[in-house]
Amino acid sequence: MMSRKVPVETQKSPYALLKGLEISDVHIYGFLGDYLDRAANVTLPSMYEMLEKEGRIDNLRFASGKKKGTFKGFRFNDTDVHKWAEAVSFLFATKVDTELEKDLDCAIEEIRAAQDEDGYVDSYYPKDKRNERWTDLGWSHEMYCAGHLIQAAVAHKRVTGKNSLLEIAKRFADHIDSLFGPNKKPELDGHPEVEMALVELYRETDDPKYLKLADYFVRARGKGYASSSKYPGITREYFVDHKPFVELDELVGHAVRMLYLCCGAADLYLETGAEDLWRALERLWHDLVEKKMYITGGCGARAEGEAFGKEYELPNMKAYTETCAAIASFMWNYRMFLATNDAKYVDTMEQVLYNGLLSGISLDGKHYFYDNPLESDGTHTRKEWFECACCPPNIARLITSLPGYIYSLKKDDSAVFVNLYEKSTANISTRFGRMTLLVETDYPWSAQIQVRVIDSRITDPVAIYFRIPGWTRDFSVRINGEDINVQLQNGYAEIKKIWKTGDSIDLSFSMPIETIQSHPFVEENRGKIAIKRGPIVYCAEAADNDFEVRTLGLPKVPQLQFRCESIPVLGKIVSISGHGFAQDMKNWEGKLYIPTEKLREDKPVEARFVPYFSWANRTRGPMIVWIRSV
Amino acid sequence: MMSRKVPVETQKSPYALLKGLEISDVHIYGFLGDYLDRAANVTLPSMYEMLEKEGRIDNLRFASGKKKGTFKGFRFNDTDVHKWAEAVSFLFATKVDTELEKDLDCAIEEIRAAQDEDGYVDSYYPKDKRNERWTDLGWSHEMYCAGHLIQAAVAHKRVTGKNSLLEIAKRFADHIDSLFGPNKKPELDGHPEVEMALVELYRETDDPKYLKLADYFVRARGKGYASSSKYPGITREYFVDHKPFVELDELVGHAVRMLYLCCGAADLYLETGAEDLWRALERLWHDLVEKKMYITGGCGARAEGEAFGKEYELPNMKAYTETCAAIASFMWNYRMFLATNDAKYVDTMEQVLYNGLLSGISLDGKHYFYDNPLESDGTHTRKEWFECACCPPNIARLITSLPGYIYSLKKDDSAVFVNLYEKSTANISTRFGRMTLLVETDYPWSAQIQVRVIDSRITDPVAIYFRIPGWTRDFSVRINGEDINVQLQNGYAEIKKIWKTGDSIDLSFSMPIETIQSHPFVEENRGKIAIKRGPIVYCAEAADNDFEVRTLGLPKVPQLQFRCESIPVLGKIVSISGHGFAQDMKNWEGKLYIPTEKLREDKPVEARFVPYFSWANRTRGPMIVWIRSV
Repeated sequence: MMSRKVPVETQKSPYALLKGLEISDVHIYGFLGDYLDRAANVTLPSMYEMLEKEGRIDNLRFASGKKKGTFKGFRFNDTDVHKWAEAVSFLFATKVDTELEKDLDCAIEEIRAAQDEDGYVDSYYPKDKRNERWTDLGWSHEMYCAGHLIQAAVAHKRVTGKNSLLEIAKRFADHIDSLFGPNKKPELDGHPEVEMALVELYRETDDPKYLKLADYFVRARGKGYASSSKYPGITREYFVDHKPFVELDELVGHAVRMLYLCCGAADLYLETGAEDLWRALERLWHDLVEKKMYITGGCGARAEGEAFGKEYELPNMKAYTETCAAIASFMWNYRMFLATNDAKYVDTMEQVLYNGLLSGISLDGKHYFYDNPLESDGTHTRKEWFECACCPPNIARLITSLPGYIYSLKKDDSAVFVNLYEKSTANISTRFGRMTLLVETDYPWSAQIQVRVIDSRITDPVAIYFRIPGWTRDFSVRINGEDINVQLQNGYAEIKKIWKTGDSIDLSFSMPIETIQSHPFVEENRGKIAIKRGPIVYCAEAADNDFEVRTLGLPKVPQLQFRCESIPVLGKIVSISGHGFAQDMKNWEGKLYIPTEKLREDKPVEARFVPYFSWANRTRGPMIVWIRSV
Repeated sequence: MMSRKVPVETQKSPYALLKGLEISDVHIYGFLGDYLDRAANVTLPSMYEMLEKEGRIDNLRFASGKKKGTFKGFRFNDTDVHKWAEAVSFLFATKVDTELEKDLDCAIEEIRAAQDEDGYVDSYYPKDKRNERWTDLGWSHEMYCAGHLIQAAVAHKRVTGKNSLLEIAKRFADHIDSLFGPNKKPELDGHPEVEMALVELYRETDDPKYLKLADYFVRARGKGYASSSKYPGITREYFVDHKPFVELDELVGHAVRMLYLCCGAADLYLETGAEDLWRALERLWHDLVEKKMYITGGCGARAEGEAFGKEYELPNMKAYTETCAAIASFMWNYRMFLATNDAKYVDTMEQVLYNGLLSGISLDGKHYFYDNPLESDGTHTRKEWFECACCPPNIARLITSLPGYIYSLKKDDSAVFVNLYEKSTANISTRFGRMTLLVETDYPWSAQIQVRVIDSRITDPVAIYFRIPGWTRDFSVRINGEDINVQLQNGYAEIKKIWKTGDSIDLSFSMPIETIQSHPFVEENRGKIAIKRGPIVYCAEAADNDFEVRTLGLPKVPQLQFRCESIPVLGKIVSISGHGFAQDMKNWEGKLYIPTEKLREDKPVEARFVPYFSWANRTRGPMIVWIRSV
């Protein structure tokens, strides 16, 4: 089978309705395009320097014996290299970069050299620690590392056509398959990840043993194989090993582990159509979006155990909302979408992408958040790197694969789906011929989208489905200047015709500033509102406001205006401003509680709000998303 | 020195300004008296049954060899017996109870039998585990157990005059003193408690070695003696071992440990006058009341590590606010008061006592809270016992010692302090003769207090200082029916005269319903108010309200009425009611976020509020303290 340059390959998946358009067929120039450019120019080169500086590549050299020394840092540190390699591979679908290519080939060579004869490769367990391999699967992250290696290898193969990394990954996967699975060692990695990787390896190689192994790893979970009594004080929930996956009815435990497992289970569903998996996935998805997701799309409320909280447990200042959990949610929702073509999943992808996911990387492209709280006293700042550096390369691989998520095709190439709106071109091969779309928009700052067919070889009617975002209340569609009525199907507007060069579609979504209330059981948000416009959640930051933003109140019916402007560091964004009230902190000196009528009235202020994803790029200071309604 | 029946003996403490009136000289008949009666009739007898049923006494029998078996439960389980013994001892100052006396003597005999020849007594480490003693001080709680044994013994001696328990405690203390201290083993218990106990033992025996040892334990803390690397994942803060006590400037780590250490340091200050201790105590006290104390007086926000949170980290639903931490705060504030005669400390004692402390015991006297959250979804219920049962006997000993806190005397017996207001009689021996006061009041439901001198042998002017509670805005004082003007000194109104039989003082504090705002940095309370009347914090419980109380909103200037009424189970209380608004939960089905204008208006409701301490005694259901202001 020909490799297609996609982040998730469902071309032959029996239970997928859709497949992605190849990354190389989509060029992005807008809001997301800026991130892609920065990834190419700043993020990925600087990250390779960090991999060298922090000893991540050296760990591999120590393992191969190319360099003298011993492993440094967390045992899963190889994955920083693997995720970076995956990110660079995806980048190569749209950009040529000989420097990065050299770095990537060098990294692959270090991985290859570190591989043992039996296929094992994990620099924490070099040859002289061979006896310790697979003895501590709850904590060892060995399959987790294998998973990231496989994902990198599959991306590398799909984009570059090279087998160098894939061969390494296959040998490691074969080694794992020789040890684990039905009637072999009844064990599991404490950190899910290998499941979705194995499904992709199956898709890439057509070898069913990988799918079988993925199925085993998903279904054997919950039997205590990963979370034996060896880990006192750590719950089985932490390892997502407290119940079989198909019995789960709520998201608990370590958020990234849980969501990666959901990705793996969804991939497995796309191949097998197993109803029990799907029912569990749907239950968990409802639990996410109805009870455990921040308005920024982030999730995993608790720092303790990096875990999901109870339902409606969504503190703002203490929100953990790891960048990796946001990425995992995006990846899971995409798989749910491929199975259903239901826009509600893309709505969730959009919600997390433009808010709690891209907040994880700075606007200079080389500083990161590990956790993405929705309120700050000013002490939460971005870092260049982390001892546990899972988030930076994870967000890099997500960014470089972004072009692959924007459009989809029906599996039989009979229809096109426009999922995310981004200034872009897309070369689309349908079963009735090729066409090229040019999308022009200032999305997410504007919801005016002009789609032009700049070249068409279409011979028969082809449907284009445009996602009508869940946040909009009304919209209009014009074809070649004429308004048309469209029906929504699963949140998509269908337009079907024989597309001609020069055809144009104008989409317009109403995108007023909205004030949002959250479920009353979220104690932190009770009596408060958040500001949203289109997909963008706003915050008030000290950098824009000369009062203590945490005291800000807005009137019940706030008069808010938006303005497209260029702000130093932030660049061109839409800011929002309006009249509000703030408290004088002098009244509170040395006091924790004051009778209400002893307080002087709030003083009137003019407040400015900026997109949440852009916070903490300027002067350090307090930040707030949920604002009391006064 | 004659034993005086007081919870803390400062008669000879050089740096105490005050000393307690003896428990046996105070009879209480009001709000607190009901708790004392229930302690005698229900709490203490039922608790002894639990001690037997749960194997706490059996553990001692196993250690002495009187019964075959091995230690069961947590290693500090002996302290449940010790605290119960202390509670029963205090009770005997005001009540005769032959059944409880029999139980107490039986328990003391079991402790005696379990004592080793060298004085060691801790049933977790019986003779055959002798080699393990003192080898794991971070976790072993051996000195913590010794501390509670000493406290029980001192109380027992003071109240009953018997030496039986004191001899046991002294032998254990001597054993500890032979091993630890300056130039001996540089180690410490991971859980402070023994410090204040040793100071009391010094006070009771006049033997300075105990004071010296207490001084060592307080001052050697923070050098890592208790929190070595033996406890991976546990911070030095948890053990309050991260800094020397005198360098502490904020409350961190395990709340009960930290506050017991503050008690010990305050006791040490009362004896030594060490300025460095006092400065640290004052810094920590300001940190408590200005940044880390709930409106209920509870503290220790985090369940994780049973710890103080950061400043202003005061979540309501997740509030841990352990009953023991409330008790520890009460005990610490009392010691601060003895050193200063400043009413601000008694204000804090009152705030915690009538709210977050007494909430820890049910109105039937035999069900308990371990944690005392300020909001509930209805799942938080009282328990008859806990595996870790520190709180029940702790609240019992606090309740039976309550009469000892209500009045104080100047050290030279020249003046009387009335600290807490309770229907009571007090026999007071001043340096100018004896007098008996009768206090009549419905406090905390009313702030009208009539004090009558029902018998006086006073020959010279004696000052009586009445605390004017910090929560009142104005007050009046009448003597024999005539208004007088008084000056406040440290929050106390002084009235000095030669008191005659028949003299009466009428105190009246204005006690309107107050709505309270909290510091804007407490994110959970922003835009919300709490209802308070006098010392009592109110809550809305499902039992009184036919709407979802967590959705309740009150108008900016709420019209609230109070009513003295008798409510089934709760008995005679003052309830508060008023018009408010609640949301219809149907609007929220399957939704986490809704644009504000899509919500139907809140529906008007009539809300009823009951005292926080009384919640969760009736139908199980949600509860809320902080109510959004709409």
